[in-house]
Amino acid sequence: MTDDLLKQITFIKEVDKLKYILRKTKLFNSNRNENDAEHSWHLSLMALVLAGHANQPVDLLKVIKMLLIHDIVEIDAGDTFIYDTQKSHDNTAEEREAANRIFGLLPADQASELIAVWEEFEAGQTHEAKFARAMDRLEPLLQNTSNNGGTWAEFDVRYDTVYAKKKVIQNGSDTIWQYAEQLLNENVEKGILKK
Amino acid sequence: MTDDLLKQITFIKEVDKLKYILRKTKLFNSNRNENDAEHSWHLSLMALVLAGHANQPVDLLKVIKMLLIHDIVEIDAGDTFIYDTQKSHDNTAEEREAANRIFGLLPADQASELIAVWEEFEAGQTHEAKFARAMDRLEPLLQNTSNNGGTWAEFDVRYDTVYAKKKVIQNGSDTIWQYAEQLLNENVEKGILKK
Repeated sequence: MTDDLLKQITFIKEVDKLKYILRKTKLFNSNRNENDAEHSWHLSLMALVLAGHANQPVDLLKVIKMLLIHDIVEIDAGDTFIYDTQKSHDNTAEEREAANRIFGLLPADQASELIAVWEEFEAGQTHEAKFARAMDRLEPLLQNTSNNGGTWAEFDVRYDTVYAKKKVIQNGSDTIWQYAEQLLNENVEKGILKK
Repeated sequence: MTDDLLKQITFIKEVDKLKYILRKTKLFNSNRNENDAEHSWHLSLMALVLAGHANQPVDLLKVIKMLLIHDIVEIDAGDTFIYDTQKSHDNTAEEREAANRIFGLLPADQASELIAVWEEFEAGQTHEAKFARAMDRLEPLLQNTSNNGGTWAEFDVRYDTVYAKKKVIQNGSDTIWQYAEQLLNENVEKGILKK
């Protein structure tokens, strides 16, 4: 028990580093970059209040576990911008190594559990992963909308590219996708998002 | 359904403000103040990995709900320093008003649920609330230890005062309290915490 606790404390200290990993996206109505810890908190809370809109009933605890840990690999692998055309965002060998190292600080059974939860999120096949990934796409949509285009304007990302990335929201929730699609159209009308 | 979703989106935008509420405590080995969103994420993740040490089996989803939302009232009421001798930390009228305003942005049934979850955390009587509160006391103990005394040194807070505040960890977990008590003693021996 005590040996387990010491390993868990080591993990708890290590993951503090997530607070230094900056995303490209800014906070709402802000010039300040969001960090991965804030982002993970926000997505978890979004899942908590939006779970009723999931296409299929989801195990909310599983969804929140995914969202609390989904970016922890970025402590070693760094944040990869979703619209980066050079580097694949998902499942790089670097991220897999990071998962093994960081979750590996925990007792073996917990390490295995959380690596499996992270892999489930990355694979995006289960109801829980689909809904969790919808949250991950929704937050920056809301942020960029509030920031007069945000990263879309900053990196000249156009409607078709954004639409393709955001459409995975539909895998998690038709209702939320309907809202998101309408928001994208409004952003085009306002000139916030270029066609 | 759509009306509910719009209310939920309003809430999701509003709680972004938690990222601007600074705590007195600094990040691990750091001079940078932690904000409430980062803090809420860290406690939620701590609960996830430490739940096995709870004195009584806990509903982990309930614990994490508490931790995700426990500081949201500070958007209106501000952070109150735990060692502040002038102002009571808990259950002020200001915090209650804040809970009604902010959770009140949600559909009525969700507002009621989350206000009840927040009140349960504040009351600290259920197994879940006791364990969640243990997390809230453990994180700054680890942070101050890593920061050569941190807020204890900065505000001249002595062992007896710290001990009394930290002892509530025992209500949530004897195992974690045993670890915490030993850490406090080590801090005294190293001169990090004054008697």
